Amino acid sequence: MLKRQTVCLSLFIMCFGVALSAQVTPSEAAARYTNAHQPELTREFQEFLSIPNVAADPASLERNAYFLLNALRSRGVDSRLLRVAGAPPVVFGQILTQGAEHTIVFYAHYDGQPVTPSEWTIPPFDATVRKVDGEDRIFARSAGDDKAAIFAQLTALDALKASAIALRANIRFVWEGEEEAGSPHLEQILQTNRDLVHGDVWLVCDGPVDQSGKQTVVFGARGDTHLEITVYGPHHGLHSGHYGNWAPNPAMMLAQLLAGMKDQNGRVLIPHFYDGIAPLSAAEKQALAHAPVNDKMLMDAFWLGHTEGGGAHLLQLINEPSLNINGLSSAQTGPHAANVIPPTAIADIDLRLVVGIDWKVQQQRVIDYVRSRGYFVVDHDPSKQELTAHARVAKIICDPASYNAVRTPMELPMAKEVIAAVSSARGRVVLLPTMGGSVPLGAMERAAQTRTITVPIANYDDNQHAANENLRLQNLWDGIETMAALMDMR
Amino acid sequence: MLKRQTVCLSLFIMCFGVALSAQVTPSEAAARYTNAHQPELTREFQEFLSIPNVAADPASLERNAYFLLNALRSRGVDSRLLRVAGAPPVVFGQILTQGAEHTIVFYAHYDGQPVTPSEWTIPPFDATVRKVDGEDRIFARSAGDDKAAIFAQLTALDALKASAIALRANIRFVWEGEEEAGSPHLEQILQTNRDLVHGDVWLVCDGPVDQSGKQTVVFGARGDTHLEITVYGPHHGLHSGHYGNWAPNPAMMLAQLLAGMKDQNGRVLIPHFYDGIAPLSAAEKQALAHAPVNDKMLMDAFWLGHTEGGGAHLLQLINEPSLNINGLSSAQTGPHAANVIPPTAIADIDLRLVVGIDWKVQQQRVIDYVRSRGYFVVDHDPSKQELTAHARVAKIICDPASYNAVRTPMELPMAKEVIAAVSSARGRVVLLPTMGGSVPLGAMERAAQTRTITVPIANYDDNQHAANENLRLQNLWDGIETMAALMDMR
Repeated sequence: MLKRQTVCLSLFIMCFGVALSAQVTPSEAAARYTNAHQPELTREFQEFLSIPNVAADPASLERNAYFLLNALRSRGVDSRLLRVAGAPPVVFGQILTQGAEHTIVFYAHYDGQPVTPSEWTIPPFDATVRKVDGEDRIFARSAGDDKAAIFAQLTALDALKASAIALRANIRFVWEGEEEAGSPHLEQILQTNRDLVHGDVWLVCDGPVDQSGKQTVVFGARGDTHLEITVYGPHHGLHSGHYGNWAPNPAMMLAQLLAGMKDQNGRVLIPHFYDGIAPLSAAEKQALAHAPVNDKMLMDAFWLGHTEGGGAHLLQLINEPSLNINGLSSAQTGPHAANVIPPTAIADIDLRLVVGIDWKVQQQRVIDYVRSRGYFVVDHDPSKQELTAHARVAKIICDPASYNAVRTPMELPMAKEVIAAVSSARGRVVLLPTMGGSVPLGAMERAAQTRTITVPIANYDDNQHAANENLRLQNLWDGIETMAALMDMR
Repeated sequence: MLKRQTVCLSLFIMCFGVALSAQVTPSEAAARYTNAHQPELTREFQEFLSIPNVAADPASLERNAYFLLNALRSRGVDSRLLRVAGAPPVVFGQILTQGAEHTIVFYAHYDGQPVTPSEWTIPPFDATVRKVDGEDRIFARSAGDDKAAIFAQLTALDALKASAIALRANIRFVWEGEEEAGSPHLEQILQTNRDLVHGDVWLVCDGPVDQSGKQTVVFGARGDTHLEITVYGPHHGLHSGHYGNWAPNPAMMLAQLLAGMKDQNGRVLIPHFYDGIAPLSAAEKQALAHAPVNDKMLMDAFWLGHTEGGGAHLLQLINEPSLNINGLSSAQTGPHAANVIPPTAIADIDLRLVVGIDWKVQQQRVIDYVRSRGYFVVDHDPSKQELTAHARVAKIICDPASYNAVRTPMELPMAKEVIAAVSSARGRVVLLPTMGGSVPLGAMERAAQTRTITVPIANYDDNQHAANENLRLQNLWDGIETMAALMDMR
């Protein structure tokens, strides 16, 4: 065996002497490249992160898009911006490979969650490197979610080129600018450019790896929808002494409304909330059974004294729909608190969905529950006539930028190839049926006539969606290896 | 009869010709004076209101104090600032009247509630006059609560002087700068200056008149205390997709905690909350029975579709203790809302007290309730050890600047004289045992060895403690008449 290999290798060197470096695997090529260029790569990533990318600032989202367009063009990638009115563009790029039989699409997003700078220790767009537990991390909005994935893809291209590893499939990049706003225009943009964005598989590079730190491949994601509920007290703030325990207090009304939505174990009490859930397949159950159980480690990391779910593990609970309060507000707390009966109280509700539950149906279940608690429900600021005619009035604004959950069967041939590629780069891989966070996989699948498989690279503790978001730099270097291995797929 | 009166009058003119103008009553003198000087008076009041007066800005509170000191000194009133370290000064003035048998103390306060300028249509310290329903109102923080009372007292002095009406009692002014912060130093300042501030009665000029618009005399006020409750979720905001329905959501925990504090009718469910209430006397019950019932008008004015109390009237409910949520916050709502499980949720709770219920006892009842709901209660930011060792942790900060309710019996001779003086100026007067809002009457009574009677002048709909606070200018002119009549008391 040894002799035969040596012969083959010699032959290979003789025939392809100029491409000697191609003997390295894609992930080795990536490791070699990043080891040689870490300082420059870190600076380039910082430059990318320093461009603000929140939905409230469309001009900066455009700057991100042009930054990426230039990044692709400078690498010789055929690229353009795909636009629809009123939305940040999708940055598109493609490398057509002669003789390729398959097309692999790499999806990521360049926009980030809103920021509240006062909550950040390090300004959200300063992209500062700090040591955490002896390891370098880079702090910035979207460091983990999701600019890291884009930067890893660009760098993987450079690494493959540096080692003269030729691509074997067609490669496409679809980098969205509206994911954190619920991707309201993605499906339209994809459908308008159906031929450009089609692929045998979409590799969705978003979200964190398993909390154990092991590279993860995820075969679906929860869907997501939101409702904003506003309940009403007096037309304007009233003195809480002169009118307290006579004028209804909307903060208390809201507390009572919300309190009835869940029991003490976090089980949602809204009627029919769990109806329709598609059960997991045998393979999915098996994957879950083999996945690390990180609950105790996470409780310690998050300083938690209990968890919801009556003892169920995180990975089990992620395969159920959820109801989460993202924010509450009524008048002021802290130094600005005043003795008032507030005029309104507001709750932002996040509903995560699993396969089998449609987002519109789930929204309606919440609305029906609010009605069942004696509320007259409106979808606009209520008039005086509406407020005085009903004991309790709630305005419910349903987010139209919502989408359903998706799961790709793990048994598909393409799924097995992706698992093999990732394993070649990163060793044993955690396989999960569902990611807790949401990605608009359904829109991608419908519009691009494809299947989606998610390959995240960020550390789980990246403060995604919160203040002081950060990426462990080692996750970036590892992620570049993973992306290089995926780009080498046939 | 007519002839005899004429004779008497002629004799009076012969004997006291130089003091001819003294024939007018104090309230007539005040009306004459304000009619002649409305534009200047409005400007002077605007000047006073334009000095910011929130607790967070001690330098501006000092400016208010010196403004008032100068106002008293320019009128020849013996005056000074009474100080204790770390508190805004009390502005003190006195007019000692030869042969006076009684001393009447006029209390008011020059500080105002905190402001959130973004909530104001008109900047809070611009002191702008605008028409509302055809009547002039002046918009500014403290326009009603409580600079109007101070300005009315100063102007009443001028009006009496202009009509050469000599005072008959000693008059003292005690104008506080810390009332909206709960008067934490008032008792100490008064006790340090016990001889200066003593009086036969303290006339507490604060709060609004009855909602019917009729001049009101109030014989007590609810006490007040606050608690700030913080409940804890994860140590930092977590992605609501990846951890939603596993990591406990503090906004939901707080909602469930608060919801259990009241029933759907607003009745407080905290054990013993109503224990110990001192019953109303026969005179107090009779006064309440004669007071206007404004509930329907108020529901319309405040756009309310229901009220708390299961059908009881506002004036009845004010004679009960209350629990009111002054503010709620957890992460963000609206455009800044993000998909997070918030790390904390906070409620500011206002407890109003009636005679017979001590504020420390009432605070403890709330704390006991929180404990009964499974919370480990701390009075500091909890450590990791505390958070992980207990399923539920609540930080409760009890406001030490709290005080009990007070009621002065309506049958006292001094009470009857005050009623007569106010009636002489304003006709039929509404008598109320208790004001819903709170004034630190107990501290005044203890330190100044006196009784308190409250004579408010502001319109009820002055947005006191809220955005766009405003005073109906006619209430200022009427209030000057009332103050003049009270200053004329023997």
